[in-house]
Amino acid sequence: MSKKVVLGFSGGLDTTYCVKYLSEDKGYEVHSVIVNTGGFTEDELKQIEQHAYKLGVKTHTAVNAVKGYYDNIIKYLVFGNVLKNNTYPLSVSAERLSQALHIAEHAKKLNADAVAHGSTGAGNDQVRFDMIFHIMIPGVEIITPIRDMRLSREEEITYLKAKGVEMNFEKAAYSINKGLWGTSVGGRETLTSKGMLPESAWPTQVTKSGEEEVKLHFEKGQLTKVNDKSFDHPTEAIQYLQSIAGGYGIGRDIHVGDTIIGIKGRVGFEAAAPMVILKAHHALEKNVLTKWQLNWKDQLAQFYGNWLHEGQILDPVMRDIESFFEHSQQNVTGDVYVHLAPYRFQVIGIESPYDLMSSKFGKYGEMNNGWSGEDVRGFSKIFGNQTAIWQQVNESSK
Amino acid sequence: MSKKVVLGFSGGLDTTYCVKYLSEDKGYEVHSVIVNTGGFTEDELKQIEQHAYKLGVKTHTAVNAVKGYYDNIIKYLVFGNVLKNNTYPLSVSAERLSQALHIAEHAKKLNADAVAHGSTGAGNDQVRFDMIFHIMIPGVEIITPIRDMRLSREEEITYLKAKGVEMNFEKAAYSINKGLWGTSVGGRETLTSKGMLPESAWPTQVTKSGEEEVKLHFEKGQLTKVNDKSFDHPTEAIQYLQSIAGGYGIGRDIHVGDTIIGIKGRVGFEAAAPMVILKAHHALEKNVLTKWQLNWKDQLAQFYGNWLHEGQILDPVMRDIESFFEHSQQNVTGDVYVHLAPYRFQVIGIESPYDLMSSKFGKYGEMNNGWSGEDVRGFSKIFGNQTAIWQQVNESSK
Amino acid sequence: MSKKVVLGFSGGLDTTYCVKYLSEDKGYEVHSVIVNTGGFTEDELKQIEQHAYKLGVKTHTAVNAVKGYYDNIIKYLVFGNVLKNNTYPLSVSAERLSQALHIAEHAKKLNADAVAHGSTGAGNDQVRFDMIFHIMIPGVEIITPIRDMRLSREEEITYLKAKGVEMNFEKAAYSINKGLWGTSVGGRETLTSKGMLPESAWPTQVTKSGEEEVKLHFEKGQLTKVNDKSFDHPTEAIQYLQSIAGGYGIGRDIHVGDTIIGIKGRVGFEAAAPMVILKAHHALEKNVLTKWQLNWKDQLAQFYGNWLHEGQILDPVMRDIESFFEHSQQNVTGDVYVHLAPYRFQVIGIESPYDLMSSKFGKYGEMNNGWSGEDVRGFSKIFGNQTAIWQQVNESSK
Amino acid sequence: MSKKVVLGFSGGLDTTYCVKYLSEDKGYEVHSVIVNTGGFTEDELKQIEQHAYKLGVKTHTAVNAVKGYYDNIIKYLVFGNVLKNNTYPLSVSAERLSQALHIAEHAKKLNADAVAHGSTGAGNDQVRFDMIFHIMIPGVEIITPIRDMRLSREEEITYLKAKGVEMNFEKAAYSINKGLWGTSVGGRETLTSKGMLPESAWPTQVTKSGEEEVKLHFEKGQLTKVNDKSFDHPTEAIQYLQSIAGGYGIGRDIHVGDTIIGIKGRVGFEAAAPMVILKAHHALEKNVLTKWQLNWKDQLAQFYGNWLHEGQILDPVMRDIESFFEHSQQNVTGDVYVHLAPYRFQVIGIESPYDLMSSKFGKYGEMNNGWSGEDVRGFSKIFGNQTAIWQQVNESSK
Repeated sequence: MSKKVVLGFSGGLDTTYCVKYLSEDKGYEVHSVIVNTGGFTEDELKQIEQHAYKLGVKTHTAVNAVKGYYDNIIKYLVFGNVLKNNTYPLSVSAERLSQALHIAEHAKKLNADAVAHGSTGAGNDQVRFDMIFHIMIPGVEIITPIRDMRLSREEEITYLKAKGVEMNFEKAAYSINKGLWGTSVGGRETLTSKGMLPESAWPTQVTKSGEEEVKLHFEKGQLTKVNDKSFDHPTEAIQYLQSIAGGYGIGRDIHVGDTIIGIKGRVGFEAAAPMVILKAHHALEKNVLTKWQLNWKDQLAQFYGNWLHEGQILDPVMRDIESFFEHSQQNVTGDVYVHLAPYRFQVIGIESPYDLMSSKFGKYGEMNNGWSGEDVRGFSKIFGNQTAIWQQVNESSK
Repeated sequence: MSKKVVLGFSGGLDTTYCVKYLSEDKGYEVHSVIVNTGGFTEDELKQIEQHAYKLGVKTHTAVNAVKGYYDNIIKYLVFGNVLKNNTYPLSVSAERLSQALHIAEHAKKLNADAVAHGSTGAGNDQVRFDMIFHIMIPGVEIITPIRDMRLSREEEITYLKAKGVEMNFEKAAYSINKGLWGTSVGGRETLTSKGMLPESAWPTQVTKSGEEEVKLHFEKGQLTKVNDKSFDHPTEAIQYLQSIAGGYGIGRDIHVGDTIIGIKGRVGFEAAAPMVILKAHHALEKNVLTKWQLNWKDQLAQFYGNWLHEGQILDPVMRDIESFFEHSQQNVTGDVYVHLAPYRFQVIGIESPYDLMSSKFGKYGEMNNGWSGEDVRGFSKIFGNQTAIWQQVNESSK
Repeated sequence: MSKKVVLGFSGGLDTTYCVKYLSEDKGYEVHSVIVNTGGFTEDELKQIEQHAYKLGVKTHTAVNAVKGYYDNIIKYLVFGNVLKNNTYPLSVSAERLSQALHIAEHAKKLNADAVAHGSTGAGNDQVRFDMIFHIMIPGVEIITPIRDMRLSREEEITYLKAKGVEMNFEKAAYSINKGLWGTSVGGRETLTSKGMLPESAWPTQVTKSGEEEVKLHFEKGQLTKVNDKSFDHPTEAIQYLQSIAGGYGIGRDIHVGDTIIGIKGRVGFEAAAPMVILKAHHALEKNVLTKWQLNWKDQLAQFYGNWLHEGQILDPVMRDIESFFEHSQQNVTGDVYVHLAPYRFQVIGIESPYDLMSSKFGKYGEMNNGWSGEDVRGFSKIFGNQTAIWQQVNESSK
Repeated sequence: MSKKVVLGFSGGLDTTYCVKYLSEDKGYEVHSVIVNTGGFTEDELKQIEQHAYKLGVKTHTAVNAVKGYYDNIIKYLVFGNVLKNNTYPLSVSAERLSQALHIAEHAKKLNADAVAHGSTGAGNDQVRFDMIFHIMIPGVEIITPIRDMRLSREEEITYLKAKGVEMNFEKAAYSINKGLWGTSVGGRETLTSKGMLPESAWPTQVTKSGEEEVKLHFEKGQLTKVNDKSFDHPTEAIQYLQSIAGGYGIGRDIHVGDTIIGIKGRVGFEAAAPMVILKAHHALEKNVLTKWQLNWKDQLAQFYGNWLHEGQILDPVMRDIESFFEHSQQNVTGDVYVHLAPYRFQVIGIESPYDLMSSKFGKYGEMNNGWSGEDVRGFSKIFGNQTAIWQQVNESSK
């Protein structure tokens, strides 16, 4: 009986190669699995399935991971307003972890002897897949043909053609990865430190020229309504907002970041709904949270995002931080108004029963009854007391 | 002989009141001082001086603080990419401290018995002025007529008219504070949690409709050239960039923040040059600094900005953090290219001899000779080792 | 009808003065309340009650706050291993907050017009009481006779003698404050920056000369057993451990700390059980938590302790941090062995089903089957990759 | 011509094996180097040299690294009061990095083809050596015979006896590593999570039974005098203090820590002088630094210590942190008094011209002239303002 391998399969060149190589050259029984985190349509999934079976996999499984992806990862990225280096919403990073976890689960269920992924030896994904597999299915062999054999695109094509595989072998001008939390775009301009992607490279083209206002309702930190429309699950609210904001070309940027393996990488991305949600959520928080809640959320979120990016989602510290985040959201309820225009958006205000900027309790720039000028005079004296002492000690010790 | 008071003087209603009140009602010899941090033209300063002498001050002094303001404060805000709550460049906060320090110095030089400022009892400035005075000129009495007498605008006008003062008593629709590092705008819309300032409220109107690219050169973290044009001092580079970017309406936003006295405040601001510089500087850093340099800079900068905002610029910890910042900038040298368009801008890349994203040493997404797939395979195993052990311990202790 | 005041009452000179002053000079109906956080015996409480009624209070209430004090505060100090400046277990700081909260609650229940405390104007307690009252019972007047009238000890005695009050007016050589979480000792030596308290000043004298080993059992971070003896509530375990460890003179130290009002203060303390518990708990955590759990717990705990010390226990960020702490304790279960000797103790090891230092999964200093030397070789290369690139870029740009 | 290898050589079993293996089996020209960071006497170094030449090395070099070790590493550990997990002074971690750097430099000077170290595959040292070599001498082959061949002690002895090598082949009961900043002790008791080293295992035996007081003088954070005795270099002051404190058995402990490779490790250590210096230095800082200086030093130091421990001393962020530390020490000048007794010590106070706890400017627990009770009353109101607003908003939104 041949040994079973579970293969993360996208239907692209690399994983197509893996099916042939693992089944025909290595004699494995190949079980392909594709994990949809919001980037594939039903049609695309069907085509990928047909492609897989045509290549000779024993079974092919499509996992619909969108809701779990949100519940276990994206929700916390929103709670933390997570933008890596204040720029990137971790679109791909988060997705890979969700995929790796489902693949590991599948391998466990099938009692597989091995698990395979199509990563090369030059990016982040290899580490994420390897690490999750080591942790969740220790002892199961990890096979990475493209990385191990340092295969070039051309070598793969030659091999597949020789095997009689029919598929589109043309290289797309830009490599694109799409999911619920944004789409990454890599290509000529992102290979060096300078250069913006051309208009044509963006998967979502700008189709709207006017301006509009959108109203987002958050309930304990989660987006539940858009323009007063309710949804069964926040993922649907995100997708609905994307359908509104996407056409404006909002949320496009290029990020230079530290890969897990130490080199710097540059990637373009478009993330209209994620960027609008993150900024709207943050705006609401600025009104309803205390100064130190905002401060600690920021510190924890920076680490949380980086550690997630580095594939460490299973470190139990992540669960502890999620507890903090979850608890911090109890008052993050209210409406946020956002103005959309081509290539930009602007949060224009919030309404919340928990708004701390309330005229009842003291209004910025106006005198009030909560405290007196004398109180602030006393406050200023005491608040600067230690530095005043320091100043005097330093002058007297000169 | 009458007692001397040094009065921070802007020529506005509040400080005009203070001159009359201090000199005529209280019998002080009033020495007015205005500290220019980049917001006043020569003409404006001359008019303010004439106004002061007409009101009866004994002496009036205009301090040109722009370069010192940059050297002692703004420089570090750039090094730290400081944006309060990821939004506000601290335009006013930074300015007030520079002003307070110069006023304290002036009081010391004149051996004044008292120092006065026109702050009300409802904002941040009162704390900043009080605190700096307590620290730098302890024992010198601090007089704050507007705060102490809870004077309304109307009361002040009545008083001044009775004293025969002639000035424009009409209230501007928006209160505006301008300086090197941005202009704040407060008015009807900023008094509540919702609402954007109307187009007409912005001091710098949008006059440019095309798009252009600008090239910024940083030398150890400081902006030294714009479009290859050199300057005697970074303040001139900032002002030159402002003259280019201002007309695009770039860098406008509304910020909700925590005041020092615990309430939330909302303020509009426009800061074209500061926002472009901060984002360009950060982009350069993302290419030339290591992951943990970026991480620690962010953490220190968040505190630095908040503590500065709260008036604590004289705490010696600020000097320690500045040492960190200064040292971190040794490689932050290079060109940054920024695309400007109406209401928005986009960093499009950098060039630097210190760029860590260099094809010589490993290129993102491509195999290379610096390390092998085997190396990464080993790395992934060890990098996830502790969590793998944790997972096994937890499963076996179930 | 006279106005009601609720007075925090300890029976000492200051609060005795307050009863007389408030009732006889100011005409208040005085309701005294004493909050026991573990420092008073039944006998002492009875004597204080008699003293109160003799002074003329309308009602006197003794609140037994020990368990709530533990559940709401001390528990989290253990979870966080909180030692202010790595030294002081916050014995008094934590206690005052518990007391202030109970006093506020009492004032609310009695619908009091005012609340009073006997703090002077020179320490931390005044801020803690004031602040909790402002927050919990806004609008209720806060009366602080000792602070406001800057009364000296002698003035208070003269006044009380004139009123016919009989009590011990002799000043103790050392002022002592005792509670569940330790006892503070202030006196001659703590008024300056140098000098240790004499042996005789310590409330708990050294009565044990031998050595012994004690076994502490923690369940999800809480001390539940001592030497296999179970207790109804962790407070009893703490008190039992104190009865064992106290006689060794363990946990004595002098702390120099930052007061809330900016000056430095020095205080002696003895805290045998708290110090043993904190170090034992930390030792257990070092074996069962991951590196980053330990790291973030430390960072959050430092803030948590400082913010609590400054009276800010009601800031909602404290609840968020407690959620983190609570969640982090799920595996902090096991036995800790501690060696006790006069004036010192030493943690000598732990046993836990969650111990990550387990020979099954890799043993320090010995080769193992979890990974190979090749894996570590790869790890080292990748782990140092960014700095290697930095080094090469810097050399080539020289 | 045979290829050159530079070998880190201690004269122990593992590195003795390496000499023979590299020269005779592999045909390398072996250049042994020993880096003394304070743990070797002149006699020991001479014996090691003789042993090396007898084994057949081409050259043997002893580097006296003590002063540089202090200037580049230990100094900053003192500035930061660095104790890993509040326990371990990083005695060995710091040392290895100094050694690796000198070995790399030697390899560069000799233009060696390879560099070798005797680490096994189970500890931290392999990563430290590998990583420093990758960074400082990229391209130079790294040879690790013991790790690669997974050699057991017995196999090494058999091999060496066959080669006619004469040395003491008996295994010491405890493996000991001695340096300027402490001595580590590993053995039977440290292999499990429980158990204290027996009295006889400690390299420095307790020879003193009395008690004494020692006076340490720090100058900008560095120990310059002990009991008023001056020294040419702080390393001598450390060694002198060690000669006084060592005989008390002070500074012994067992640490459980996270290794770089993810497992937990346990190690005993004795570090009399380091522990006394760290606690004395910290005590001085508590009197002369402001609250936030202490706070940020702690946060940076925790990272600095961990990152150093993990071998990342060459990350440029470490230089940035050192700039912070250096600057923070400008006022850390004064005397610290420490009481020594068998197995324990107690800091009993400090004297410094920069002491912020000064009766001139406000004395803890006593009223003063710097501020009034009214000032603190105002301070308390404002300091709790935001939480008071939060409380009211939450109650009204119930």
